[in-house]
Amino acid sequence: MKLLNVDSLADVREKLSSHFGGMTLKTESVGIDDAAGRYIAEEIHADMDMPQFRRSVVDGYAVCASDTFGAGDAMPAFLNIAGTVEMGSIYEDKMRPGEAVYVPTGGMIPDGADAMVMIEFVDKLDERTVAVYKPSAPNSGIMNIGDDFRKDELFFARGHRLKPKDIGMLAACGKTGILVYRKPLVSIISTGDELVDASETPGPGQIRDINGRTLAAFAKAAGAEIQDVRVFRDDFDACRTHAAKQLENSDIVLISGGSSAGNKDMTAALIDSLGDPGVITHGIAIKPGKPTIIGNVGGKPVFGLPGHPVSAVAVFAAVVEPFIKSRYFGSSDGPVSVSASVTENIHAGEGRETYQMVILEKTGSGWLAEPIRAKSGAISQLMRADGYIRIGSLTEGIEAGTAVEVFLL
Amino acid sequence: MKLLNVDSLADVREKLSSHFGGMTLKTESVGIDDAAGRYIAEEIHADMDMPQFRRSVVDGYAVCASDTFGAGDAMPAFLNIAGTVEMGSIYEDKMRPGEAVYVPTGGMIPDGADAMVMIEFVDKLDERTVAVYKPSAPNSGIMNIGDDFRKDELFFARGHRLKPKDIGMLAACGKTGILVYRKPLVSIISTGDELVDASETPGPGQIRDINGRTLAAFAKAAGAEIQDVRVFRDDFDACRTHAAKQLENSDIVLISGGSSAGNKDMTAALIDSLGDPGVITHGIAIKPGKPTIIGNVGGKPVFGLPGHPVSAVAVFAAVVEPFIKSRYFGSSDGPVSVSASVTENIHAGEGRETYQMVILEKTGSGWLAEPIRAKSGAISQLMRADGYIRIGSLTEGIEAGTAVEVFLL
Repeated sequence: MKLLNVDSLADVREKLSSHFGGMTLKTESVGIDDAAGRYIAEEIHADMDMPQFRRSVVDGYAVCASDTFGAGDAMPAFLNIAGTVEMGSIYEDKMRPGEAVYVPTGGMIPDGADAMVMIEFVDKLDERTVAVYKPSAPNSGIMNIGDDFRKDELFFARGHRLKPKDIGMLAACGKTGILVYRKPLVSIISTGDELVDASETPGPGQIRDINGRTLAAFAKAAGAEIQDVRVFRDDFDACRTHAAKQLENSDIVLISGGSSAGNKDMTAALIDSLGDPGVITHGIAIKPGKPTIIGNVGGKPVFGLPGHPVSAVAVFAAVVEPFIKSRYFGSSDGPVSVSASVTENIHAGEGRETYQMVILEKTGSGWLAEPIRAKSGAISQLMRADGYIRIGSLTEGIEAGTAVEVFLL
Repeated sequence: MKLLNVDSLADVREKLSSHFGGMTLKTESVGIDDAAGRYIAEEIHADMDMPQFRRSVVDGYAVCASDTFGAGDAMPAFLNIAGTVEMGSIYEDKMRPGEAVYVPTGGMIPDGADAMVMIEFVDKLDERTVAVYKPSAPNSGIMNIGDDFRKDELFFARGHRLKPKDIGMLAACGKTGILVYRKPLVSIISTGDELVDASETPGPGQIRDINGRTLAAFAKAAGAEIQDVRVFRDDFDACRTHAAKQLENSDIVLISGGSSAGNKDMTAALIDSLGDPGVITHGIAIKPGKPTIIGNVGGKPVFGLPGHPVSAVAVFAAVVEPFIKSRYFGSSDGPVSVSASVTENIHAGEGRETYQMVILEKTGSGWLAEPIRAKSGAISQLMRADGYIRIGSLTEGIEAGTAVEVFLL
């Protein structure tokens, strides 16, 4: 039996960085309506001050503030209505002291005015006169030029993943076409003599392939595009031919199954046969997921993931997703996490970083995280888990009641 | 000036439920590869026990546990190698006491065996004999039939939104085509004489439309499909013609702008002109977002949202998104939230539920939520905000240090 010589996660990151750090990120242009969820490949700057003009934030009258000082219910200030600002238009005249100009919310403040009086505090006595019952301080009710943001201000740096709320900022600065990083094409191969496709009915000793579709869904959520998902028997030549073709058509190949030190292992040999330098990591110090293989085939990464779906997902989260984000999108964003208190002692240790699936429960005093106890390979863990916690390789475990970070699935 | 007679959020929910509660949810079928993010319209049950057969969770030898009792380094148990289980195959013979059969991880346990011994604890002396150095308890290393899940077990109820991690469960039970709720078609109209499309350069007094693209991005993220996004001047007839057409082609129409009690308001009149019963809510007790209008036009909902992007987003989160989820997807899922401690006092009150945008900061002792102070209508709030907190209408505010729930944007 061949013993695996494992790398720590830090070793793996260093190797990935030295093997693939020099890759050029590919870009493409997308329309603003398809931009949410994409990683931007250009700096986005404001193309103008916002507002571009002094803008009213209330419905009411633009005034000279000093005209309203001392105004009250008993002693209103009487001002001459000099006109009305139309939305989207400029007020051509200059407003003079003693005058008031009606300005709707969002309208442009006339030159000469320095405050707004809300319509609630005035009485329009006739077409030419308005009574103001409340003093207005200079600048009140006005958003000045650049108050929201300044021309050339940096909105988003390269590698930022656009959220729905960011789309308005693109619209505000006229970016209707955005340079984004191209989605890497991912091909996924599930290997195992016991596997049948999800569309088939498994016979005795067989099981439907779960990893192919699961990894595809996770890779898509991470921002990749799926090129191909296929199930293969442990037939070296057939697998090799298919993997070689997928390597040509894709940016990344994921192979699951066939990576433990058992009878039928072939992923390492397969990677080595595909091209140089071949396997760069054979075994990672994480739990679950130790029998993970990473290869570099002519500059393209091939990941050999464990056959157990929960282990494959753990390795995807620990290794593949951060790799995709950093190497194809220039992003170091981690997964969303919440703080929670663990409900039971969790044993870890053994020098491996542990990924423990947990169920979250909301209580009056915050989130509770309950570790899922399941036999190795139980896939229903994935259904039940709300997230996972990471336990460092130098820790023996976590005591009940400890505050932990739960990364959401 | 017409004063708005506002509804509470509870009133609004009740009205929406009484006006639209009877709608039939439409369904369609999608392939498993497109299922993530969709809301399922059928109950998903396990179609078989998992595992379907007694499965080994280790590489090693299947044995009769009693044969190994008392085995140790000094006194191994010697067993006859009776054969090998091939992955994906059935072991035809019955294993007898005194025998051992090699079974790889995931392989089927032979009849007669009741435990596995890991390969680490055996020595294969020759082709016919294996020495076992460690006792194995009955069932150790074995996953029994149904240990993972049972036939007919409910995986997902109707209205569940499928996550990437759920896709494996669909694959496991052979669901490669899934009935999901159809995405409602949403048309979005931005109104205002000051608005130009994001692709244009605003002139004096003008501003690029932000709401159209923002609402489209949020509606898409909520699971809807965008039918049309258009900017209109405050031209009643042109707006009405366009809105009537969009009502025919879409399930929901969102109109932003034109809903405050100012000069140019026309959304309420527009909704009333489109069909009966027309406006059902004119003003909601939330801050920001009070001048929100809701209409029922021949059984289809029309939402008149505020012109300020931050207000429009708050109303979308408070009213439109829960409506879409409940009425089109049968889901009552809320947004993802984290617990945080607020950094400053926040004033609320005035009988309105307050939506306060906050910036999240991670510290050693959990998340801090810093309220964003910005003038009404400042859109850069949206860029800076990580989420929002809700402050009930009966609360005057929140003191610094209070634990709050932050809903992520």
